[in-house]
Amino acid sequence: MHKIEELIELVSNEIDKLSFKGTPAELYEPIEYIMSQGGKRLRPILSLVACDMFGGDVIKSVTPAVSMEMFHNFTLIHDDIMDRAPIRRGLETVYKKWNANIAILSGDALFALAYEKLLAYENDNIIELIHLLNETAVGVCEGQQMDINFETQDNVSIDEYIEMIRLKTAILIGACLKAGAISAYADKKYQDMIYDYGENIGLAFQLMDDLLDVYGNEEKFGKTPGGDIRENKKTYIYLKCIEIASEEDANKLKDYFSGKEFDESEKLQAIKALFEKYNIKAITEELMDEYYKKAMEILEQIPCEDKTELLRITDLIMHRDH
Amino acid sequence: MHKIEELIELVSNEIDKLSFKGTPAELYEPIEYIMSQGGKRLRPILSLVACDMFGGDVIKSVTPAVSMEMFHNFTLIHDDIMDRAPIRRGLETVYKKWNANIAILSGDALFALAYEKLLAYENDNIIELIHLLNETAVGVCEGQQMDINFETQDNVSIDEYIEMIRLKTAILIGACLKAGAISAYADKKYQDMIYDYGENIGLAFQLMDDLLDVYGNEEKFGKTPGGDIRENKKTYIYLKCIEIASEEDANKLKDYFSGKEFDESEKLQAIKALFEKYNIKAITEELMDEYYKKAMEILEQIPCEDKTELLRITDLIMHRDH
Repeated sequence: MHKIEELIELVSNEIDKLSFKGTPAELYEPIEYIMSQGGKRLRPILSLVACDMFGGDVIKSVTPAVSMEMFHNFTLIHDDIMDRAPIRRGLETVYKKWNANIAILSGDALFALAYEKLLAYENDNIIELIHLLNETAVGVCEGQQMDINFETQDNVSIDEYIEMIRLKTAILIGACLKAGAISAYADKKYQDMIYDYGENIGLAFQLMDDLLDVYGNEEKFGKTPGGDIRENKKTYIYLKCIEIASEEDANKLKDYFSGKEFDESEKLQAIKALFEKYNIKAITEELMDEYYKKAMEILEQIPCEDKTELLRITDLIMHRDH
Repeated sequence: MHKIEELIELVSNEIDKLSFKGTPAELYEPIEYIMSQGGKRLRPILSLVACDMFGGDVIKSVTPAVSMEMFHNFTLIHDDIMDRAPIRRGLETVYKKWNANIAILSGDALFALAYEKLLAYENDNIIELIHLLNETAVGVCEGQQMDINFETQDNVSIDEYIEMIRLKTAILIGACLKAGAISAYADKKYQDMIYDYGENIGLAFQLMDDLLDVYGNEEKFGKTPGGDIRENKKTYIYLKCIEIASEEDANKLKDYFSGKEFDESEKLQAIKALFEKYNIKAITEELMDEYYKKAMEILEQIPCEDKTELLRITDLIMHRDH
């Protein structure tokens, strides 16, 4: 078994080796830019941890793992256009640093390059990996479209929100773990179980992200906190508060999220106060914990000898502060 | 050998069988919309013609052929955002009918679905086809980026323009023919030759498109003529005219394309008059003919018995009015 730290280095070396030089520069520089930013690189690392856990060859598996990271970065480039997000990982987004057209095109090219990277894997189960990437890509698009719809949709239910983050975020976590299991030639049954494990961890991961957006430290989180509140994003935190608050408080909250003009810091303070009043942070953490427990129940049924590193990285995800 | 007419029907039936139902509707309806528009479906037909010419199984090959058409439609959805094009094939573009975000996402999903369609091909040379699609996709992005750059680039050379249309348009024609040759298990040498044939025909095809944009019939062409002139697109027609016109006329032309405000129909008339003065239509047709001849020289060296249908469809491309 490899320690996470070794796998982080493996991923990092593999990404450093990638070169996105080419012409026209306007197409390749944004790709080089986003791929060299680092970020947590959680997805390829999870992929290698799963591969290792199922007794696979992590050196071979680093290729599909990095392909998944390339795919992830492509989705970020496009999401940031749609969200008009200026900052990501503490740096200007591609959309902001260049423009929307360049972000569309460099994203498209990175998507194709992710498939080309995957082909470098060259094993007899590669079709399974390509199918997984296709399926995941379509699901992520569905999730992102739901997210966009929610902006103008009045009655978003908590179930719909969970389905949206499942598609937009959690299935990619599941897919990365499954990719590792596929490349380790794990039993199909366990491939699906590790996917489900990842989906549950992914849901907890996104709820954590929503919490960090309200309570996170700007420097560590890489973006200005309160972004979801400023943009009136209907996250679980908001939806749950609407559900349990008094009618008066719920209406107050809805009014703040209605798109009317408010003084920004006043709005942020008022909403945080409402979240505090209804203990929303703890309730969200409880839900995160439910998903965590579901994941653990699934993992128990997977008969791998050594689950230490998967548990370690899961723990890092659950207790991250950025 | 199958007649083009049979292959058109084969492609058309296969596309009719595709179903893009799914939720959220905002993601899938634009895909259904663009895929059911028809258009000439030249690319998958070329692919099947090549497959047939090399003795392949056109029934099997219809899967990669249609995948190429799906890829092509994805590029159209994204191009129309970047070009802010309201009309395509006589209908509103996805960007215009819905919005830019929906066009970005439904394009992304269609790109992934094109790869998934390709997987349905299920033959031992599928990796070659996926590699071809990857490579083509990256090239098309490069071409589109060059096209965008030209909008603000002062001195676009004719060579640069040809390189741009080679990447943006011609390589996909080449790739479709090559995909047919691959699925027919043609010799690698002939796969590359039919690609080169397609590239040359593709260059002629795009020059024809540029001519049709100035001289085409609106109803047949599916978009309002003069679009390139209105948008100050530096096509071959424009660049060649600048090259051979008197200094005075060249400056006049440059001035019209400088982005200043002009009365639209006056501008169109003045520019058409300049093109006429320098016989630009005939000069462009000469260049088209050069590419056509190059293509024919290549085709002569491919030892297929019956090239009738490829020559027929090539002839249709060279003499099309829309």
